[in-house]
Amino acid sequence: MITAEIIAIGSELLTPFRTDTNSLYLTRTLEERGIRVIAKSIVGDDHEHLVDAFRIAFARADVILCSGGLGPTVDDLTREALVAFLEIPLRLNPEILEWIEARFAKRGMKMPEINRKQAMVPEGATVLPNHNGTAPGLFLEARGKQIFLLPGPPFELEPMWERSSLRLLRSEQPFQRKIFRIAMLPESQVDEMLQSVSSSLKEVQYTILASPSEIEVHLLAPDSAATELVSACAEVRAIMGNKIYAEDLITLEQVVGRLMKEAQKKVAVAESCTGGLLAQRFTEISGSSTYFERGVVVYSNRAKTELLGVPGELIEANGAVSEPVARAMAEGIRTRTGVDYGISITGVAGPEGGSAEKPVGTVFVGLADSKETAVKQYSFPGNRSRVRFSSSQAALNLLRLKLLE
Amino acid sequence: MITAEIIAIGSELLTPFRTDTNSLYLTRTLEERGIRVIAKSIVGDDHEHLVDAFRIAFARADVILCSGGLGPTVDDLTREALVAFLEIPLRLNPEILEWIEARFAKRGMKMPEINRKQAMVPEGATVLPNHNGTAPGLFLEARGKQIFLLPGPPFELEPMWERSSLRLLRSEQPFQRKIFRIAMLPESQVDEMLQSVSSSLKEVQYTILASPSEIEVHLLAPDSAATELVSACAEVRAIMGNKIYAEDLITLEQVVGRLMKEAQKKVAVAESCTGGLLAQRFTEISGSSTYFERGVVVYSNRAKTELLGVPGELIEANGAVSEPVARAMAEGIRTRTGVDYGISITGVAGPEGGSAEKPVGTVFVGLADSKETAVKQYSFPGNRSRVRFSSSQAALNLLRLKLLE
Repeated sequence: MITAEIIAIGSELLTPFRTDTNSLYLTRTLEERGIRVIAKSIVGDDHEHLVDAFRIAFARADVILCSGGLGPTVDDLTREALVAFLEIPLRLNPEILEWIEARFAKRGMKMPEINRKQAMVPEGATVLPNHNGTAPGLFLEARGKQIFLLPGPPFELEPMWERSSLRLLRSEQPFQRKIFRIAMLPESQVDEMLQSVSSSLKEVQYTILASPSEIEVHLLAPDSAATELVSACAEVRAIMGNKIYAEDLITLEQVVGRLMKEAQKKVAVAESCTGGLLAQRFTEISGSSTYFERGVVVYSNRAKTELLGVPGELIEANGAVSEPVARAMAEGIRTRTGVDYGISITGVAGPEGGSAEKPVGTVFVGLADSKETAVKQYSFPGNRSRVRFSSSQAALNLLRLKLLE
Repeated sequence: MITAEIIAIGSELLTPFRTDTNSLYLTRTLEERGIRVIAKSIVGDDHEHLVDAFRIAFARADVILCSGGLGPTVDDLTREALVAFLEIPLRLNPEILEWIEARFAKRGMKMPEINRKQAMVPEGATVLPNHNGTAPGLFLEARGKQIFLLPGPPFELEPMWERSSLRLLRSEQPFQRKIFRIAMLPESQVDEMLQSVSSSLKEVQYTILASPSEIEVHLLAPDSAATELVSACAEVRAIMGNKIYAEDLITLEQVVGRLMKEAQKKVAVAESCTGGLLAQRFTEISGSSTYFERGVVVYSNRAKTELLGVPGELIEANGAVSEPVARAMAEGIRTRTGVDYGISITGVAGPEGGSAEKPVGTVFVGLADSKETAVKQYSFPGNRSRVRFSSSQAALNLLRLKLLE
């Protein structure tokens, strides 16, 4: 197994406002070549910290990729730190100098003296041309490791990496990654359901990723474990069944959109506590106008009555957050629009508005079709955003299951 | 100077799909206390790499913050790696166990056996309660350093950090950071408007950060430059005027919400291309029910006519994306609800639906009150999400300016 470490360099990446994202792009291309990223570091423009970062990376990874710190200013220290760590000299490369001077001349400018620094190359390094900036990249093999120094801006880094770095990279048989997405089950429950699979794996690596109301199970396999991967996937499918909504990185709203298009059905939604989030998720999909007819955000009781025909007495007797009101909302939006499915959401998103009987997180989701109306009650943990997201997730998942019936 | 290192733990953070973002939030709170983040590390769920990460962090930083790896699965190794590195024992804490069991019981579930692990506490550690998940946080002082182990999910980490961790943290003379938020102006224009300020600064550092339809200007000053900071802020205010919507990290919807509450006005919205996003942003604010009456997502032309009274002939003559339709939508939602302000959005969010006359990004935003209806036309760059966000931003900003009149 070839391992890699990615070092992102730049003090701005240590502020509250920016962080490294080049590593996501780089990791994808490494994975395709069977190289596994085992660590990432982010350090500022500080000579000592940079030398430290090189020391650590050389101790644990086979391939080291650095981004940033190749510019012309005094803050750009990547080259200097690398040669200090490796104890090799830095030499002026006249060809690069000429190329940088020409680049400035082309724009009618004289090269500022500080840019001369960008023509300094560690002994033994290969120069990686930069077609979108003045900072050339560098490639070096030392102490049995491969080191790539790449510029920080993505529009400089990505073409350089693709055109001149990848072919220098060691590579192995690529991994295969299978992804299963599951909505509305807690992480621990999924983990327990899949324990028979995960505990019996040999070469395949099992990972479970949780975000609110959303679980991803990843199976990662080297080429040698292709058969094991196939049977592990089959087992996961057998256990989870239609709880899996996708075997890909697509979203629940995309899956529902595809099913709606296939079924040639239409939906309309009536939301209270989610305040438009469900409609927004439906319509985030391009082409959703073929199945999403309309949405109403009935934040006031008056709106519930006027737009959905929910009787004022029903709201008064049960409260706006109740099973009967969710039912009336789903039926109201369906019959008033004449679509196939009416969905309703009413709940307490918090932080205010909770009571002993209906604490924050209490949510009712209704789904009406021409035959019946089903209402499900939930008790979602978390803050306002999370309760709202979970509610929209529950609604989309109910519609998905209905469409699979 | 107190220094900090942030370690993000989880193999998913080394995939092409996820990376650490908790550090952005944490860094902001550290900066406010004068603590400087000098490095960030991201490591997978691997015992050896975790122990290494602790060794490296202990060697270079005063405060070490870890996120992730506190869950119940076999992949969650943070506690174990820390005690292995520090050579201290891990003990079962019966109170935490009871609390986790109760948490499951509340939802009518029995605690899975694997969750027992989350009640294991390193000797000498302080437990940080988790109000939004089963993983308690941990705080430890060892070898002259402060170590915080926090859960990975932001909705668990952030409240824990604010409620129980911050008060344990060492602190110093903070920097002062002043933030100005500006909506709907391009970065280059803001930068040019503020050139007289930025070019004359001495000790104060000027940064401009751009995201879609949103610019932030940051002025960062050490304690010694307090006077310079005050006069720079005054200059920024004089130049930008009411283009600044906030001098803080609050959102545009929060600012509009405050203004609406002060003015005791009500608003209702009619959305087409934003599909509920504007309603969702209004209602993301707790207490928005006092000023947000309702929203309608009129994705079909029929819905525009039925819910807003937009004449079918008007749509046919001008197209759904047009000045007259935006006007009729804003007036329709206002008169039908009797609120103070009616807002409408209709546009081409893309990627499909554009034409030579109305390319993708063409958006009309209408704002009606009892006296007049104003419609503004925009041409937004970017993909579907970005066009939708910019449209909602434009609508909120128009309402803000109206409320300031």
